[in-house]
Amino acid sequence: MNFLTPGPSQLYFTVETHIKSALKNDICAISHRSKAFQQVIGHTIAQIRQLMNVPDDYYITFTASATEIWERILQNLSAEYSYHLVNGSFSKKFYDFAVSLKRNASKHEVALGQCFDLNSFTVPSQTEVLCLTHNETSTGVSMPLSDIYELRKQHPDKLIALDMVSSAPYPDLDFRHIDTAFFSVQKCFGLPAGLGVWIFNEKCLEKSLALEKAGMSTGTYHTISSLVKNIRTNETPETPNMLGIYLLGKVCEDMNNRGIGAIRNETNYKAALMYHTIQQGENFKAFVENEKFRSKTVIVADVIKPKASFFINKFKEHQITVGSGYGAGKDTQIRIANFPTHSKETFELLAELMSK
Amino acid sequence: MNFLTPGPSQLYFTVETHIKSALKNDICAISHRSKAFQQVIGHTIAQIRQLMNVPDDYYITFTASATEIWERILQNLSAEYSYHLVNGSFSKKFYDFAVSLKRNASKHEVALGQCFDLNSFTVPSQTEVLCLTHNETSTGVSMPLSDIYELRKQHPDKLIALDMVSSAPYPDLDFRHIDTAFFSVQKCFGLPAGLGVWIFNEKCLEKSLALEKAGMSTGTYHTISSLVKNIRTNETPETPNMLGIYLLGKVCEDMNNRGIGAIRNETNYKAALMYHTIQQGENFKAFVENEKFRSKTVIVADVIKPKASFFINKFKEHQITVGSGYGAGKDTQIRIANFPTHSKETFELLAELMSK
Repeated sequence: MNFLTPGPSQLYFTVETHIKSALKNDICAISHRSKAFQQVIGHTIAQIRQLMNVPDDYYITFTASATEIWERILQNLSAEYSYHLVNGSFSKKFYDFAVSLKRNASKHEVALGQCFDLNSFTVPSQTEVLCLTHNETSTGVSMPLSDIYELRKQHPDKLIALDMVSSAPYPDLDFRHIDTAFFSVQKCFGLPAGLGVWIFNEKCLEKSLALEKAGMSTGTYHTISSLVKNIRTNETPETPNMLGIYLLGKVCEDMNNRGIGAIRNETNYKAALMYHTIQQGENFKAFVENEKFRSKTVIVADVIKPKASFFINKFKEHQITVGSGYGAGKDTQIRIANFPTHSKETFELLAELMSK
Repeated sequence: MNFLTPGPSQLYFTVETHIKSALKNDICAISHRSKAFQQVIGHTIAQIRQLMNVPDDYYITFTASATEIWERILQNLSAEYSYHLVNGSFSKKFYDFAVSLKRNASKHEVALGQCFDLNSFTVPSQTEVLCLTHNETSTGVSMPLSDIYELRKQHPDKLIALDMVSSAPYPDLDFRHIDTAFFSVQKCFGLPAGLGVWIFNEKCLEKSLALEKAGMSTGTYHTISSLVKNIRTNETPETPNMLGIYLLGKVCEDMNNRGIGAIRNETNYKAALMYHTIQQGENFKAFVENEKFRSKTVIVADVIKPKASFFINKFKEHQITVGSGYGAGKDTQIRIANFPTHSKETFELLAELMSK
């Protein structure tokens, strides 16, 4: 079976080989404080940095999930005020986390399938962290990088957090325009779930330290200061998902060898083919009307007739599993993941099946 | 190499086979909300329940690590007052977490290598959660179950939390005497790190809900109420370490087939052999003087001559890696893990090497 689901998804095609080498090299049995494992962490960080062009002065750290990072960002980067752009279930959850943590959170929310008009909302002046979602996995809406850069221009004094869960490493992001970004590994990286990657700059560390100094709790083992203290020697506060960190380094190395440019080109090709197929036939319609906001990595289509489950089952007969719609779209939409592990050939077969 | 280190440690001998079956069955690619994965979670919970004799009305849930559970216990089970019995680095960290979370934490602390005299401390009456460590991994001190049961008798109104990180599933614990217990999987279960198991009863859920009702934040996705809501349908709040949960179920099933009684007997035999060997020769001395408090699963020895690294290197020549001492004991102690995956034959070889 070929899983074109928006996470968990098909494993990257080299993962099985790397699991074998991990077992052979006792990666799961050695101490997480050993030199050997410090080298593993160092390798993984270097490969992520190269692949995503992360500046040298941005820290790259590890958590259990991107879900966890929502919580850690709010605990470490806001004493009171967070502001959220919400256009689907996951950007909404980021906001909900702030409410649960008793922050004075506010949001600008638009309808499902929509993105944001920068002229239609005002970020409150007291905002400490502005929370953006690059790719809303539930609706297939992607925020243009130019909009993110424009927000930075308008708010140079605020921290900007960017959820890249279902897009990284596809976007050619200039990290200088944001302060922190994060993702999990079971989406575009094609890895087993259970690992989040949290990237942040010195300003985030300073903010977190300032909150601590003011007597606030920023958490325990996964405070920014605890993560930074440990990552300076390629360590983690707790015994982490060591296999996950090892595999992430290996897959990033594979992607670097392939070239991020080639991966982006192939992603663009597959996305163009899929949106073209959706628009051509009579059975589907792109859920995101404005082409400018259509995600390249999570493609959402309304099923016009007969219904979503019919096509999901039909594709399964050809060994392709696509995702169902999320939440309200469960019965009426399909979601197709377009990740680096998904081949052009699989997309061409899927396009053919959709056109029939 | 054979890793007799107190976590991470040698993988359970069936893990490699189970990883292969996980890959074959697409465990890492299917949705964490699918029926197939709900069955995986259901299976893992049932196997843990059987292996550790967990009562039906105790919830079994999953986190990223036991370290995380320290944090979650304090957030969910104490508005203000936690009390900690401290006799080493890990029980101390549990206390430190409470301080970081601004709880009014207090502790009774004894010297390294010691356990607790129940007559020498008084648990403050306002204590909400009493935090105990069954097996202090840094020193090899194990708290007798009878002492835990006695504390319950003295404090029927307080919640009792039990850290079983480096002992579960060895102790034949009667869960009725405690309210919550937890462990991670890279110790006695011989699994890749990155998964914690949190077991708790209805009283813990009630306490957490009461804190929420009083307007406190108990966290976000990993509050007790969020975990309970999800686990009722064999789900997790976030995309979890799915491979880890699958492997844990399989290894618990293997252990159930072997029989927990047989595992305990073998653990007792290997521990007796090792303590006997330590006491016989001139090179080692058991760090924990009082036999009653000596851990069966983490055996710590002072090295009298020449020094710890000499023996660690010597054993490595015979394909056995033992742990170094923890913290202050780093250069003068060795720590030997006695987990279900470590064979009698390996222990007999190690005993022979130690006697030479």
